[in-house]
This record gives sequence, C-alpha cells and structure tokens, in this order.
Amino acid sequence: MHETRVRVGLLGCGNVGGALAELLLADGDRIAERTGMVLELRAVAVRSLSRPRAASIPPELLTTDAQAVAADPDLDVVVEVIGGIEPARTLILAALGSGKPVVTANKELLANCGTELFDAAAAAGRDLLFEAAVAGGIPLIRPLRESLAGERIHRVLGIVNGTTNYILSQMAAHGASYQEALAEAQSLGFAERDPTADVEGFDAAAKAAVIAHVAFGARVVAGDVDREGIGAIGADDIVSAHRLGFVIKPLAVIEEVDGAIGVRVHPAMVPAAHPLASVRDSFNAVFVEGEAVGELMFLGRGAGGAPTASAVLGDLLDAAHNLTVGGAGRTPALRAVPRRSIDDLVSAYYLTLEVADRPGVLHAVAGVLGDHSVSVRSMEQEGAAEGARLVFVTHPALERDMQACLQELHALDAVRRVGGLIRVVGA
Amino acid sequence: MHETRVRVGLLGCGNVGGALAELLLADGDRIAERTGMVLELRAVAVRSLSRPRAASIPPELLTTDAQAVAADPDLDVVVEVIGGIEPARTLILAALGSGKPVVTANKELLANCGTELFDAAAAAGRDLLFEAAVAGGIPLIRPLRESLAGERIHRVLGIVNGTTNYILSQMAAHGASYQEALAEAQSLGFAERDPTADVEGFDAAAKAAVIAHVAFGARVVAGDVDREGIGAIGADDIVSAHRLGFVIKPLAVIEEVDGAIGVRVHPAMVPAAHPLASVRDSFNAVFVEGEAVGELMFLGRGAGGAPTASAVLGDLLDAAHNLTVGGAGRTPALRAVPRRSIDDLVSAYYLTLEVADRPGVLHAVAGVLGDHSVSVRSMEQEGAAEGARLVFVTHPALERDMQACLQELHALDAVRRVGGLIRVVGA
Ligand SMILES: NC(=O)c1ccc[n+]([C@@H]2O[C@H](COP(=O)([O-])OP(=O)(O)OC[C@H]3O[C@@H](n4cnc5c(N)ncnc54)[C@H](OP(=O)(O)O)[C@@H]3O)[C@@H](O)[C@H]2O)c1
Ligand SMILES: NC(=O)c1ccc[n+]([C@@H]2O[C@H](COP(=O)([O-])OP(=O)(O)OC[C@H]3O[C@@H](n4cnc5c(N)ncnc54)[C@H](OP(=O)(O)O)[C@@H]3O)[C@@H](O)[C@H]2O)c1
Repeated sequence: MHETRVRVGLLGCGNVGGALAELLLADGDRIAERTGMVLELRAVAVRSLSRPRAASIPPELLTTDAQAVAADPDLDVVVEVIGGIEPARTLILAALGSGKPVVTANKELLANCGTELFDAAAAAGRDLLFEAAVAGGIPLIRPLRESLAGERIHRVLGIVNGTTNYILSQMAAHGASYQEALAEAQSLGFAERDPTADVEGFDAAAKAAVIAHVAFGARVVAGDVDREGIGAIGADDIVSAHRLGFVIKPLAVIEEVDGAIGVRVHPAMVPAAHPLASVRDSFNAVFVEGEAVGELMFLGRGAGGAPTASAVLGDLLDAAHNLTVGGAGRTPALRAVPRRSIDDLVSAYYLTLEVADRPGVLHAVAGVLGDHSVSVRSMEQEGAAEGARLVFVTHPALERDMQACLQELHALDAVRRVGGLIRVVGA
Repeated sequence: MHETRVRVGLLGCGNVGGALAELLLADGDRIAERTGMVLELRAVAVRSLSRPRAASIPPELLTTDAQAVAADPDLDVVVEVIGGIEPARTLILAALGSGKPVVTANKELLANCGTELFDAAAAAGRDLLFEAAVAGGIPLIRPLRESLAGERIHRVLGIVNGTTNYILSQMAAHGASYQEALAEAQSLGFAERDPTADVEGFDAAAKAAVIAHVAFGARVVAGDVDREGIGAIGADDIVSAHRLGFVIKPLAVIEEVDGAIGVRVHPAMVPAAHPLASVRDSFNAVFVEGEAVGELMFLGRGAGGAPTASAVLGDLLDAAHNLTVGGAGRTPALRAVPRRSIDDLVSAYYLTLEVADRPGVLHAVAGVLGDHSVSVRSMEQEGAAEGARLVFVTHPALERDMQACLQELHALDAVRRVGGLIRVVGA
C-alpha cells in the first residue's frame, strides 16, 4: 500500500496527550499497515520539562515552546490537548493560520469560541476536528456531522458527563446519599477534588453547546445553556423515581421546537424502559431523534485517557487523509438561530413537597397548581417526620407556569419544604 | 453559503429507493440550506413503469434503462438500491467505470463481491459507500471506517437482523413459541413470507462479512461465515435463560483471535446486564470492543425505508463533498487473513438434554462431558413428561470438544433429545 507520512505536533501531554503519544509510539506500525498513514510524532509541547512523562516518549521530542510547535512549518497536523481557553485558542489559531489542520478535545474552548475557530478553519481551508470534545471515545461528532448531515434532527438527549452519571447510578444502586456517592466518586478518581464543573453541569453545558453546533449548526455558546446541577437530588427522589417507573439521569437536551433551538442541562426523570435509563456507572450515551432515521443511541466511555486518545487518533487519520487529497472535511458553519428559553418548555414534572400533615393542605396545594393550569397525573402521599411528603407527577405543563407554582408553594403556610422539581424526559 | 449542484441517478425505487426519492424531493431545500449541497434527482431506474410509485416522483425522471443511468456522463453520483447480485454488480461497475461515486445499500453484493467492487472503486479513484448495508439507519460503517480507523478492534458483536431480534424478543416477553412469534412477525410485516434469509442467518451473515471488511480489512465472503439459525430455540430455552440471568439474542460475532479472524452468526446467551441484552423488538445494535476505546455500542433502526434512506443520504452527501474536493474517501483495501474456524472457538455453552429419569443418567452424561474436558459451571434438573430436562452451563470449552460431546450424547441410551447448544457471549 502507498504510505503517506504525516508529521504530528502535540500540544499538551497530560491524560489524553500522554495516552495519544503512547498509541502513536507503540502502535504506529500497526496503524500504518492498516491505514497507509505513518503518523510521526515530531514534537510534544509540555508546560514543564521536569514533570515525569511516559518513558516511551523520547526526551528530544519535548519542548516547552508550544507556540513554536503550533507555527512550525515542518509539521503537518497539530493536536491540542492542553484544555481551557488560553493559550489553547491562540495556539489553534496559529496552527490553522500556518496551514495546518488541528485536532482538539477542548469542549470548553469550542463552546466559547466555536464561531471564531470554525471561521478560521474555513478561511484556512483546513480541518478543525473535535470528536473527543464530546463523549470522549464515542464516535458522535463525525456521525452527526457526516452520516446525519442531511437528517432533520429533532432532538439530542445526552448523558455526557460520566461523573454525575456515576454518582446518580451509585445512589440508585446502593441507596447512597448524594454526599456519599460524590465522596466515593472522588476516592475512585471519577470526580475531581473540586467537583463543581461536573456536578453543577458546566462540563455538560459546554458539550451541549458543541452538540448544538454539529446537530443544528446553531451558534450557541456555553453561557446560553440553561443549566442545573444534580446537588438537589436526594435519596428519596431516587426511591420515588424507581417506584414511579423512572430513573434519574443527568441529561443534556438539545432540541429544535418550531424553528428555535433549546439547549439545557439538568437531571431528568427518564422512563425505565428508555435506552438511556440503562446507561449506568460512568458510561456516556447520546440518544438522537431524527425525522427519517428515527431513534439512534451511541454508547461508550466518555472519558479516560485511552478512550479519548482513540477519538483523537480517528480525527488525526481523517485530517491526514484530507490533507493528502488536498482539502478539508466539512467545517460546521454556525448560524444565528432563534433560541428557545427554558421558560417556554412544555414538560411533565416530578415535584415533591414536605407539608404539615393536616386537613386542607392538599386542597391548598392543588389550588396553586390549578391556578397555573398545571394538571396532576399522579400524587402519592408518604408519611414524613411530623408531616407528609407529597410526590406529584404532572401532565405536560409550561415551565414558566411550573416556576410560578413553586414561588407560590414556597409561600404556603403548610408547605415546609419544596423539594426537587425534576423534568420528565423521553416519555 | 456556496452551493454545489450534484446530479443523482437512482437505481431501484422500492422501499429504500422510494423513501430516498421522497427525501430528496420533499426536503431538498432544507438539505441544501444546511449542507450547501443541492442534490438533484435526475433519473430513477425502475423495472416496470406501470408499477405505482410515490406521487411526488415526476414521471419524466423514470426510466427502465438502468444501464443508461449507470453510465450516464451527465450524472455525478449513482445510488444502487435494487439489491441482489445482478444486475446490481454490473451497474455499480459501470458507474464507477464512468467515474461516478456509488452509494449502495446492498449487503448481499458486498458480501459476495466486495473485493472486486472495492478494487474497482480504488482504480476509479471514486467512493463506494455503503453505510445502509449494515444496520440500516445506524451510523456504523463510517465510524468503523473513519473514527476507529486506527483503533485495534478486538471484537464486534451485532444484533444486525431485526426480524430475528423481534421474534426472540416476543418469545421472551410473552412466552410465545418460535412458530407463533414468527407468524406474528410476518403478519406485522417484520418478517417476509419466506423468512429463510432472516431466520437461517443468511442476512446476518452477509452483514457480518461487511463488518469484517471495515473492522478488520478482512477479505471475508458470505459463504465463509459460520452460520446457525434461530429455529431451534424453544420457549423453554427462553425461560431457562431468564432464570440463569441471560437473554437469548441473535448475534453476529466478528473477532480477531491471535491474528486470525472469526466470523459467525448464531443465537447467543447474553448476560442480562450486557447492553445488548436490552436491545429489544426490531431494534438493531452493534457492540464494539477496542483496545484503546474500550466498549462502544451503536443502536437504532436496522431496517425500514426511511431509516435506511437516511443512511444513504448521509453517504450521498459524503460522496458529493468528496467529489467537490476532487477525491474519494478511504476505500477499504481487503487483505487475505487467516480465518479462525468455529471449531477453535473457546466459549461457555448452554446445553439442554431430555433424559430418562433414572439413576445413573447424570453420571453417564457427566462422563461424556468430562472425557472431552468440558467442565460444568451449573446444572439444573427439571421434571419433564416421562423424564427430566437437564440444563447445563459449561465453563469455557473448545467448540470441537463440545461438538464431540453432542455426538456421544446423542448416542447415549438414556438421552431422549439433545436440545439447543447455545453459546454464551459477552460474559
Ligand atoms: N481526560 C479526559 O477524559 C478527557 C475527555 C474528553 C476531553 N478531554 C479534554 O482533553 C483536554 C486535555 O485533557 P486532559 O485530561 O489530558 O488534561 P490534563 O491531564 O490536565 O493535561 C493537560 C496538559 O497540558 C499541559 N499544559 C498546560 N499548559 C500548557 C502549555 N502552555 N503548554 C504546554 N502544555 C501545557 C499540562 O501540563 P501541567 O500538568 O504541567 O499543567 C497538562 O499536562 C481538555 O480540553 C479536556 O477537556 C479530556
Ligand atoms: N428495506 C430495508 O429496510 C433495507 C435495509 C437495509 C438495506 N436494504 C437494502 O437495500 C436494497 C433495496 O432494498 P428494498 O427494501 O428497497 O428492496 P425493494 O423494495 O425490493 O426494492 C428494489 C427495487 O428495485 C427494482 N428493480 C429490480 N430490478 C431492477 C432493474 N433491473 N432495474 C431497475 N429497478 C429494478 C424493484 O422493482 P420491482 O418491484 O418491479 O421488482 C424494486 O422496486 C437491498 O440491497 C437491501 O438489501 C434494505
């Protein structure tokens, strides 16, 4: 087979960069034999030379001058796995500006500067590929960008954060509290010491914005995403969900409704029979609803050095192939789209209230719901210390009506606590 | 956005071709707006003009001269959705020969003439794309060919035939017999009047061969595939499987073991917690095990006009894009590989025997198993009319030893019937 040599510069050599370097160095011959592409790792930019690296990386490849690697005319492709906005943004722009395609895993950067980067790639006529930025090793971006390029996609539902899926799965499997499950996730390395980015939904929101880019060509940035964390989910919610036939999952929802794009991240009640309900532990999965194709799901490892490096490698081979035929793949062209606010969402809701156990309470609560045209599909009452816990599932209602209910319910004398409001998705 | 006009010739206008024509005609503007590609349907080859067609297809596009469409220099891309070997093969070769990329959904043809067709595509420098040939609407071929091009894939497990998955799912859900479930599938249109291709595994075997092409670059033809149908699965097997923590699924298994490629199609015992176990009804799913990426699963509609047309449309846009940059995507280059015969398989097995209920029977059976180094993980005995039913699950054993056992067990006086031998996969 005709062999093509491709000189690769790597920016960043942490979890993902290290795993990629290992793959290229240890597996290069097999990759060349299989694909005809010889991927030569020529430079690895690191922050500090004194940090220990995988032994297989020849020390002469290491440099602390990332800018020089990005701009190096003797490299063919650049991989950015530093993360964060700067210097990653400047480095990627430099690489594209010098005519090199770029592969990145950086959801944060894409979710904040996607338009600028895609425009730079289009202007350079070079690829900017980012399969690894969403759902790690799962092929998702390429199927959305290419296989489904002509599909009228209605909605994408994603479990795109492994940490929160792990926490909620542990709570469901073992009756653990949120704090216990979080601590366990931290001790196992599934959650960071500071878990904010994961549990508050910032990580998922960045990925949701990137999905909006490729599924809808929508110019959405991370800050546009309606976002809610999982910290308010209690062990009792998990139990109630199970009894009602649901599983609570951390979802990113990206959808088109009447020509407007809604993008939101929150825990959701998913029917137990839905394919997303059985996506457990730290697995990720993305469920796509399209007009012609119907329902699709992609499942796999959303994080980890090796799975993520696998996605980067696929992009690298794609960029290398496109280079040899002298062009680029299809860069998303983002357009301004009408945004659909979560206030306009129509959804069924799960709602719990702790109330004083006295006559008339349910009447008062039902009055509030009724005043806002929220109709109740089911209600269960459980005894609670010195009172009762009411568990409602509503019929589809308008989010803004539901929020207005919450305000009034808070003010009701007999209501001790308004518990979680959890949207039902996928029913 | 700059628009590219692409003139499309369609060969065959049945389930898939009709749905594709509808998509192109009804949705062309949206597709053009989204992708910059104007897909102009210019000719539709049919067998008979008198057959009723979707009203939206302008009659002047119809022709019975498929060969003229294939060779037409005024077309840019050809879609083959006639099916079968001839005339599809000749038409595809003619289209490639005249410099046109081809999109096909024809697993039968690829599984029998893949090498010839891929070589013709490579010689022409044109795409031969076939996403729709395996698992209908599910993006699988492109992820395997591109996203996972550098991945060391160990094994692919696929539920790639919706009919047999539907039948086994109905048996499991409602305790139906095989015959009842088949009849129901036929009445609902999920199974053909002559169900042989599905229930005997021919359809899945063709798809398995195509998966072997893209996952391993292996020159495998349909006839190479070890194949077993689902007809021997009884309602009692379904019940026993459930009790033992398994679900019986119709699987295609494509794997590399010690450098040799094994390709087989048979019903399998899948652990209930495995993601494939919850793929129900007529859904398809493909589970991929890779060295770096870990475990992936792709799920969706494996058949139906619209889902399959969606996959064809994705390929069409890919071919159109590649044309505009003057090249082709990556055509699989198939190489001869050592084949791994099913005789060399190492697997756990589920085995049932109907035996006379008398002392010494178990001793005799255990003797046969032991003589062939097959060790038993679990055994259950159930009363049966005038005898007993023994249900074994073995530890991993060699297929050829297991088959030798079956021969001897048949010959044992006390064994009235040797029931299904079902391989355990995914444990
Ligand atoms: N890890 C995953 O599972 C995963 C999954 C999907 C996507 N991603 C994305 O992949 C990217 C990398 O993630 P990661 O987990 O590999 O992060 P990481 O382990 O923190 O690696 C980042 C590396 O970049 C280095 N670095 C920082 N500034 C640099 C500079 N100016 N020049 C050269 N190197 C510099 C860091 O060095 P120091 O260690 O000295 O700071 C570190 O080694 C991020 O965008 C992340 O979102 C990661
Ligand atoms: N249906 C699915 O769900 C599905 C899914 C995946 C892949 N596929 C594949 O897609 C292909 C098409 O399947 P299908 O379900 O659309 O089959 P189909 O409904 O039988 O359509 C095939 C069409 O080709 C026409 N035809 C036969 N010979 C022809 C000729 N010489 N010139 C022009 N037209 C001719 C047939 O006409 P007559 O009706 O007059 O014979 C028929 O309309 C097959 O390769 C199949 O394996 C199908």
